[in-house]
Amino acid sequence: MTLENISCNKSFGGWHKQYRHDSSTLGCTMRFAIFLPTQASEQQPVPVLYWLSGLTCTDENFMQKAGAQRLAAELGMAIVAPDTSPRGEDVADDAAYDLGQGAGFYLNATQAPWARHYRMYDYVVQELPALIEAHFPVSQRRALAGHSMGGHGALTIGIREAARYCSLSAFSPISHPVACPWGQKAFTAYLGEAPQHWREHDASLLMREASQGLPTLVDQGLDDSFLTAQLMPEQLELAAQHSGFPLTLRRHAGYDHSYYFIASFIEDHLRFHARHLGLTG
Amino acid sequence: MTLENISCNKSFGGWHKQYRHDSSTLGCTMRFAIFLPTQASEQQPVPVLYWLSGLTCTDENFMQKAGAQRLAAELGMAIVAPDTSPRGEDVADDAAYDLGQGAGFYLNATQAPWARHYRMYDYVVQELPALIEAHFPVSQRRALAGHSMGGHGALTIGIREAARYCSLSAFSPISHPVACPWGQKAFTAYLGEAPQHWREHDASLLMREASQGLPTLVDQGLDDSFLTAQLMPEQLELAAQHSGFPLTLRRHAGYDHSYYFIASFIEDHLRFHARHLGLTG
Repeated sequence: MTLENISCNKSFGGWHKQYRHDSSTLGCTMRFAIFLPTQASEQQPVPVLYWLSGLTCTDENFMQKAGAQRLAAELGMAIVAPDTSPRGEDVADDAAYDLGQGAGFYLNATQAPWARHYRMYDYVVQELPALIEAHFPVSQRRALAGHSMGGHGALTIGIREAARYCSLSAFSPISHPVACPWGQKAFTAYLGEAPQHWREHDASLLMREASQGLPTLVDQGLDDSFLTAQLMPEQLELAAQHSGFPLTLRRHAGYDHSYYFIASFIEDHLRFHARHLGLTG
Repeated sequence: MTLENISCNKSFGGWHKQYRHDSSTLGCTMRFAIFLPTQASEQQPVPVLYWLSGLTCTDENFMQKAGAQRLAAELGMAIVAPDTSPRGEDVADDAAYDLGQGAGFYLNATQAPWARHYRMYDYVVQELPALIEAHFPVSQRRALAGHSMGGHGALTIGIREAARYCSLSAFSPISHPVACPWGQKAFTAYLGEAPQHWREHDASLLMREASQGLPTLVDQGLDDSFLTAQLMPEQLELAAQHSGFPLTLRRHAGYDHSYYFIASFIEDHLRFHARHLGLTG
C-alpha cells in the first residue's frame, strides 16, 4: 500500500493533500484528497469524515467549493474525499455523464463490462479507510457524508455498515434510486435488469427495514431541479417513520443542487458529526 | 445598459448571480458575478467589495472557492467579481496564459492589437460600478481587493482612485510589476517598451509617491512559488515606509499561491473592509 503525494496546500493551519495509489479493490490507480487539521498527531489521532461526491465529480469538488476546512480545523476533524469511480484508459466507460467513469454509484458491479473495476462499495467501506488509518494520524471513529449520487452512497453504505460509522449525512441524496431515471439506468447497467438485486443499494428501502439506527442528517433544497424526478426525499422520510430510523430531514426554500447550497449548510453537518464523533458535547 | 441574468444560486440566505452585458468600454460582451446578502434592499443599500481575480481566472473562481459568502452574508456586504479581461472571438488573444484573454492586468492598453478592447482599468473604475449601482440595491461605498494579478489591479487602481474606495486589500499581489517577468511581458505588450509608461501601473512605485493614504491589508504566503521572482512584497513594504502609506503586510509561513490560502484568511479581509465601509465599529 504505497501512497504517492501529488499536491499539498496549507489550509486553515492544517493541510490539504492529494495522493495517488494503486487500488487492489478497483484494479486501477486512484486519487483521493485529505484535509488534516493541526490537532492530528500520533499522540492525538483525529476522527475522519468521509465525503462521497456526486456525478462527474472527483476528489477536488468538495475540497475546493464546500468551505468545510475552516470548521474542520477548529473542531479537529480530518476529511477524506475519494474519487467517484475507478479511472483510467483500460477502465470501462460510457459517453453519458451518468454512467461509467465519474458515476460509480458506490456499489460493486456484477455485469460486464463493469464488474472488473467498478467496486466502489468495497473501496469506500474497506480499502480506503484501511489505507487512511495506516498512513495518517487518524482514529477509527468515522462519519460518512455525501452529495447527490454521493448522498446515495453515504446513506446506503452507512445503513448497511452501521457498526463502522458514528453518523451519516447527505445533501440532496438520490434517496430512492430504484424508482428514478439515474438509479434505474445505473443499476440496470451495473447490477443487471432484475430489481431484486437493486434493493440493497436503495436508501429508502434499506432505511425502511433497518434494525440498527444511525444518527442521520439530510438537507434538501426546494429549488433543486432534480428534486421530484431524481431525489425523492419524501421516500426517505416515510421509510424513517416506518422503522423509527433517527433521520432529520430538512427542506430549504430557494436552494438548488449546487455547491452554493452545500457551502451554506456544511457547518451544520460538521457540527452534527463532531457531536457523534465525540469531538464536542 | 441591459443586464442579462444567466445564473442564480441561493447562498447563505442571499443570492449569487451571474450576468452578461455589452460593455461599451471594452467593446465586447462581459460576464460578472454578484453576491447579494439578504440585508440588501432599496431602503437599505449595502456597500460593495469588488474582487479582482488573477491570471487565467473568470468571475467564477473567487465565488466558488474563497468561501467569502458566509461572512459577507453576516456582515451585509455585497461582492462583485468581474472577469479578468475582455473576451470573445474578435478580441485579441495570445496562446500564453499570461497575456491576452484572462490576463488583462487591469490597465488601458495603448498598443496594437490590444488597445481596441483591453481597457480593464476604465471598466473596473467606471463602467462596472456605474452598472452595479444602477441595477442593484447597493451604496456607493466601495472596497477593492484581489489576488495576484488582481492584487496588482486592486492596489494600483485603489491608490490612484483613492477617493472612490474606503479600503484596499490583496492576497499575493504582483507588487512591483515593472521589475518582474509577468509585469514586464504584459506592460511591453499592452503599454509599449518605454518604462515611463509603466510607472502608473506599479503598486510599489505608486505607493512610494502616494499623497493620500487608504487603509490597505496585504497577505502573502511564504511558500508561494511566485514570491521571489514575481510578487516582491518587500518592495511594497519599503514604499509604504517611505511615504507613510497605511499598509499592513502580513507574511504567513507554509501558505502557497492557491485559493486554499485565500480561503484561510478571507475572513480577516472581509472584517477589515467591513470596518472601513462602516458596517462594523
